[in-house]
Amino acid sequence: MRPAGAKMNPVLLAIDAGGTSTRCAAITEDARCLGVARHGAGNPISAGAPIAIASLASAAADALSAAQTAPQDVHAVTIAMAGISSGTSFEQSLQTAFASFGVHAIVRFDSDAMAGFCSGTAAENGSVLISGTGAAAVRMHAGQAVATADGLGWLLGDVGSGFWIGHRVARAALANLDRRGPETTLSALLVAGMPASAAAASRADDGRPPEIMQILTSTYAARPVELARLAPLAFAAAADGDAVALSIIDEAAEGLHATLRAVQGSATDPVVATGGILAQQPTLRRRIEERLRADGYPAELIPVDDGLTGAAVLALRGAGVRVDERVRMALSRSIDEARRTVTS
Amino acid sequence: MRPAGAKMNPVLLAIDAGGTSTRCAAITEDARCLGVARHGAGNPISAGAPIAIASLASAAADALSAAQTAPQDVHAVTIAMAGISSGTSFEQSLQTAFASFGVHAIVRFDSDAMAGFCSGTAAENGSVLISGTGAAAVRMHAGQAVATADGLGWLLGDVGSGFWIGHRVARAALANLDRRGPETTLSALLVAGMPASAAAASRADDGRPPEIMQILTSTYAARPVELARLAPLAFAAAADGDAVALSIIDEAAEGLHATLRAVQGSATDPVVATGGILAQQPTLRRRIEERLRADGYPAELIPVDDGLTGAAVLALRGAGVRVDERVRMALSRSIDEARRTVTS
Repeated sequence: MRPAGAKMNPVLLAIDAGGTSTRCAAITEDARCLGVARHGAGNPISAGAPIAIASLASAAADALSAAQTAPQDVHAVTIAMAGISSGTSFEQSLQTAFASFGVHAIVRFDSDAMAGFCSGTAAENGSVLISGTGAAAVRMHAGQAVATADGLGWLLGDVGSGFWIGHRVARAALANLDRRGPETTLSALLVAGMPASAAAASRADDGRPPEIMQILTSTYAARPVELARLAPLAFAAAADGDAVALSIIDEAAEGLHATLRAVQGSATDPVVATGGILAQQPTLRRRIEERLRADGYPAELIPVDDGLTGAAVLALRGAGVRVDERVRMALSRSIDEARRTVTS
Repeated sequence: MRPAGAKMNPVLLAIDAGGTSTRCAAITEDARCLGVARHGAGNPISAGAPIAIASLASAAADALSAAQTAPQDVHAVTIAMAGISSGTSFEQSLQTAFASFGVHAIVRFDSDAMAGFCSGTAAENGSVLISGTGAAAVRMHAGQAVATADGLGWLLGDVGSGFWIGHRVARAALANLDRRGPETTLSALLVAGMPASAAAASRADDGRPPEIMQILTSTYAARPVELARLAPLAFAAAADGDAVALSIIDEAAEGLHATLRAVQGSATDPVVATGGILAQQPTLRRRIEERLRADGYPAELIPVDDGLTGAAVLALRGAGVRVDERVRMALSRSIDEARRTVTS
């Protein structure tokens, strides 16, 4: 135990909670990352509150442990997450979970879009374009979100998202197998990736090829959003010159460009690109940049892997620390180093 | 009660059971319709077995009542339905339900596609193109279904179906409201048709227009296939020259044309067009016909409202009656007359 009044090195916890994984960094007010940790799904809307709370609490506890920091040294917790605000029963349950291992600090929420933006730039004006499982664009002005486009979910929007691309992959592969659509290597890639259990398809099949029944059976047994896992097939086939895959990616770029342009402000403002698809697919980013240049917007997209650096920037700002580009970059490097320590 | 051995006028029951409604006709072997009845959803896959059995039994009992025919005069029941075959527990439950009001006849199943085809032609070779909530094409040869295209369901196929069109209506209306897509009157039509309760949307709205939140809330609260109810908006807006609606209908025609061409045989074989969308939208049929003519297939689509006449044709054939075009037309007229009696 430390002596009373020992909070000489206040620590901030920054958490980037997503639908697939939750990342936490323990940072100091002079922008050093002391430790990081990663756990599973942290968004209560998609994962349910109990799972989300367990992920958030585990990530926080493990980051403190990696940072060799006592829980009572935590001054504030900043959580970046889609669709959550303060004053909810979720926030209360979360406070209770944190208190159970000694963290009694205040909890602040911010949006995943804001964290993504702040991961890529210290500017107060600009936009962030997101394509992960879903897709959206948000414009920031004076550090506040002032306009949003898309983010309307897999059924009604999310144009150019992982779901949107994966959905088109499945439909194009099936149209080909069904002799309604053009030849595409997506069919073979899709069939090769099917779980073996799907081979035992039992639907009445009207004499159709077994591959079609296999795809139908396994897809309808899953949640629609799981089609997002097929998105990488489009990029793989496009890299091999498949015309159908190339046109899917071109339409995704067209859709994401329209989403960004619906919110975008000045041509000189930075545009951060994040989410699993935009972070990992430079081809898609380049196609969006080509369209932006055609509009007279010369800026390149700033790719960032996730919102952890941004959550840390927001945590510092919440503590009254001024974060400029130099501080953001120092923070980003320090977090990356801590991540390498965890991985190695 | 009739005297024993009085089965001098054997009656056949023909049932066309769909996802929305179930139609039954009581017919004689000389192709006269004695009475018809209509009840709710009759497909156990979409409606569940208890509801389907209740609809089928009620339609049969009411048709017999309209025909002033005793249940013991029924020689056979022919049921046209998607995705059902003989020898299932559903068939057993159905036999039990029929027996409960005195119908002990054999029950035969046939496909909805075959009934649709036989509603429009007595030919043994040809194709049927279906666009209702779903969409598919089936080629018949020597009275058997020999090839099927699409019918892969709302998520993976059903190109040009009511769901497919309604889904595009919702997406185009939202893209317009979200400033990502072109102006379209579909937005105003969609908002005008929203249930009033949806106005009390409670999602976190990121400062978006209330119309967007209203559409999101009511759509995500319903099953995806219910988007099919928006399909008529596309035809209404297209009739007023809306470019976005026109392109949705043109793409639907393109998709249905590709589905038909994937199974179609000889250019001289008849093509029957059925399902709620194709039956009620001559514009869509004309656009498909234009595409067929460009392929050198001069035949016009033969529109039919539903599969009841076809189920009756199949019932007669099952009883060993030869059905040519003259008999099919007599049956069709007689069923239409009986329907007018019910309606008036």
